Parts: sequence; C-alpha cells; structure tokens
Amino acid sequence: MGKEGCEQGVTGVPRLEIIGVTGLPEIAVGTRLGQGIADACAAQGTPILNGDVLVVTQKIVSKAEGRLVRLSSVDPSPLAISFAETSGRDPRLVELVLRESRSIVRMEPERGVVITETLHGFVCANSGIDASNVPGDDFVALLPEDSDASARRILEEIVGTSSLTGVAVVVSDTFGRAWREGHVNFAIGAAGIAPLRDYRGIPDAVGKMMTVTQIADIDELAASAELVMGKTANIPAAIVRGHRFFGGEAGYKPLIRPRANDLFR
Amino acid sequence: MGKEGCEQGVTGVPRLEIIGVTGLPEIAVGTRLGQGIADACAAQGTPILNGDVLVVTQKIVSKAEGRLVRLSSVDPSPLAISFAETSGRDPRLVELVLRESRSIVRMEPERGVVITETLHGFVCANSGIDASNVPGDDFVALLPEDSDASARRILEEIVGTSSLTGVAVVVSDTFGRAWREGHVNFAIGAAGIAPLRDYRGIPDAVGKMMTVTQIADIDELAASAELVMGKTANIPAAIVRGHRFFGGEAGYKPLIRPRANDLFR
Repeated sequence: MGKEGCEQGVTGVPRLEIIGVTGLPEIAVGTRLGQGIADACAAQGTPILNGDVLVVTQKIVSKAEGRLVRLSSVDPSPLAISFAETSGRDPRLVELVLRESRSIVRMEPERGVVITETLHGFVCANSGIDASNVPGDDFVALLPEDSDASARRILEEIVGTSSLTGVAVVVSDTFGRAWREGHVNFAIGAAGIAPLRDYRGIPDAVGKMMTVTQIADIDELAASAELVMGKTANIPAAIVRGHRFFGGEAGYKPLIRPRANDLFR
Repeated sequence: MGKEGCEQGVTGVPRLEIIGVTGLPEIAVGTRLGQGIADACAAQGTPILNGDVLVVTQKIVSKAEGRLVRLSSVDPSPLAISFAETSGRDPRLVELVLRESRSIVRMEPERGVVITETLHGFVCANSGIDASNVPGDDFVALLPEDSDASARRILEEIVGTSSLTGVAVVVSDTFGRAWREGHVNFAIGAAGIAPLRDYRGIPDAVGKMMTVTQIADIDELAASAELVMGKTANIPAAIVRGHRFFGGEAGYKPLIRPRANDLFR
C-alpha cells in the first residue's frame, strides 16, 4: 500500500472506478449486511475484488442494527417540548436528538436548528437522526451505536469465507458544514483502512516538505461514493475500486477534532 | 441530464470513472490550461469525452494566472508584524493573508491560526494561500482572483474547436473543516455545472418528500478527484467520467452560506 492514493495501470495513468451496488433486498433487523452486499455485487456482475473499498450508507446499517425508533414510543422532556413549540418541530424527535447527544453545539428554536455533538463525537445537525428512506410515518433512524464496530462486522462478513485481502469498509452519512451550503457524504465508521492520509514530512512535487497536510481519506471516499449512490436511487452502497489505501483499524476517531483544538464550538 | 448523479450502463449498474491527468508541462504565466489539459488527456490515451467533468487543482490555475507572489516584495503592516511575532509565522505571508480577506473569522496568534473569509467568500485557513508545490523559497500562491472565470476560460479552451458538449470544469482546493480533522478537496470555481444537486420536493426511496436535502455536487466531485490526484504525484487534474450533472453557469456562489444564515462566524 503506497502513498499516492490510487492504483496506477500499466500506462501510468491513475484510475479509480466507483460502482453502485444495486439489487439489495429491503433491510430488516438482523440482516447480514456484509453478506448481502457481497451477494448483490456478485449478482450484478461486479464481485468484490482484493483492494476494494465498500462504502455503505448509514441508513441501511441502522436498519440492520435495529436503530429505527417509533416516535409514538418517545416521551419528550420539558426542554424538547419547549424547543418544539417555538420551532414547530416534533417534540419526540427533538427528545431523541437530545438523548443521542453528549453536548449541544447550537440550539436555536427560532431557526429550528439543533447542532449537537453525538455520543460518537460527530458534530452534526439533529444528532444524525432523520426519517428519509425510512418506511412508515412514525419511524426515524438513529445513527449506529458504534459505527466502527458496524464497519468491522460488515467487513468480516465480506471477507468471511472468501480469499479476499485488503478490503475495507466505510460507513457514510451526509453532513452539513459550517460556512458552506449543501450536504456532503462523509465517513462515520471504518474498518480495514486508516482514516487519514498523512503527507507530513513527505516532499511535494517541487521537493518542499509538507508540514501540515493530512487528507481525510475516508471522507473523500464517502463523498465519491455518494456520486453514484444518490438519495433516491435505491443504491445504498458502492465499491470504490483502484484506491491505494493504508490498512489499519483506527476507525473514525482520528477524524474527530479534540475539543481543545476546536475553534468553532 | 437526470437526477441520479451517474450514468447507468446497459446492465443498470451505475459506474463512474476517475482518471488522473498526467504529463502536463510545468505551468507558467499565460499557459493555456484548458488546451494543455485536453492535449495531456489525448496524449495519455484518455481523450476528453462528452459529459466529462474536469477537476483542476487551484495551484496550476494560480500559476497560469500569475497569482504567485514573491514574499520579498511584500511590506507587512503592523498587524501582520504583531501576529507574526507571537505566532512565529512569516509577517509577509500574514500580510498577504490579510490583504486577500474580506473578514477575519478567527485570528489566534498563540495557535498560529488565521481563518478568514476570502474576497470570494470562502471561509478557510490563510485565505487559501500556501507555498506547497510552488517552486522557489520566496514564492507563495494566492487563490485565483475569480475562480469561476478561471473555470469558464478552461472550459472554453477545452470545448474550443472540438465537438464536445456537456463538459464541465471544477477548480478545486483542499479545505480544513470545523470539528473534523484532515483536509478534504472542495470546489472553489465551476463552469458548465450547477453546484448543488437539489432533492427538495423529490420522493425518496420510500416515497417520502425530501425537504432539506441539497448535495454539494461540485464539492463531492472535487473530493473524488483528489483520490487520484494526491499531493505529491504531479497529477494536478482529473477526469470524472460518467457523472450525470445539471448544466448551468451558476458557479461556486450558491455554495457560500449567507452570513445571516451562518451559525459559526
């Protein structure tokens, strides 16, 4: 595994392919996702190969792990009720957002915005909870409880009895960002791949040592996979083929900026 | 041009290919970048095709547009000198950062950090100025003055006398982010492609209307291209092939969150 971030073909031209995974069945609690994804890849004529990165959307992971919650089962707190009254949002949803957070970064009832630090440490809107692509009017999906463990389970099932090596799994979700409009798909969990590509101490193309550059490799992989997954297309996973990455079990945690270094909380 | 964000082959499997552009000559002021990129693509056996998106790194755009500045030509202000003394940074570089900004978002001499809003409206470290991949010890590269105009010029040269249609250009740069470690390649300019993919009012995979989802399409394209471009590999451009996008001349501006809606300034 090298430093350049991609396979180079015989011609020296770096190429990467992103292949959507179609034909996955509806995901139920307990569905063996890794097995299902491997089967779906094979069935569509693109079996998983050595070196592939599988990007899997959070929504199907949450479904498989039973992380759908029925709103009618939620008893909202006074804080949730108060926020909901001003913002016009559902107090039971607000209650779940609060329960899934370990700190509140911004809470602005007039704008209807809650930005939290989730129990994992991600800073995002609504603790990552939403109802899109969740069947039924009364259910919402929470993030996986331990998204690195989710990625590891999927990877183990994919590698399982096969002879695959050097395969990695990234669990992804769309994030809003400070200062920029539009959502971008980023990583919330990973297995078999280091989250950061580190150029510190490596000479750049003109021979200068790079001092601060680390690339959020698994975030860029998640973003690239979204280009084929879309939001409406029933393509909840993608293969990224040809990306040269570092193996490792570090998961998402190195992507979380320590609070002491964070200028925007 | 459809809504799904990718080409579907005859088998219905969505695929996208990312191809690094190699063999570009060293870029000098006045280099016709679009022509050079089209020639390099042809020379490596991957000529630009209808529907391709070309992602081009800011650094070569700045070089072609004469946006390299000699530090020894810069006379630092008292503010720049004061910040430089505490932070240990070069006062002339700090001076350029201030000149290229229209507001200061964070300025913390003890940490050596300046986060500015650039003249374009991007919020980023150091107004996007850096010295990596710039030859010589005394030069740094500023962002292009009008990065949408840069993208348009490159696109015009690529399309030029060819019969290409539906080609787009994205100019990219690596950005740090609030809350998350690691840099990610995002868009700073675009031509021939709408910056946002809009799902509002479109049913999701279970038929619910999506109410807030806009995907920053050109940011995800920039991120995906970085996977083959890397930082050290002399691959300053990439073709993204198979992405179904909306044409348009809107450029980067819709990605800039209006200050009134921004919770993190």
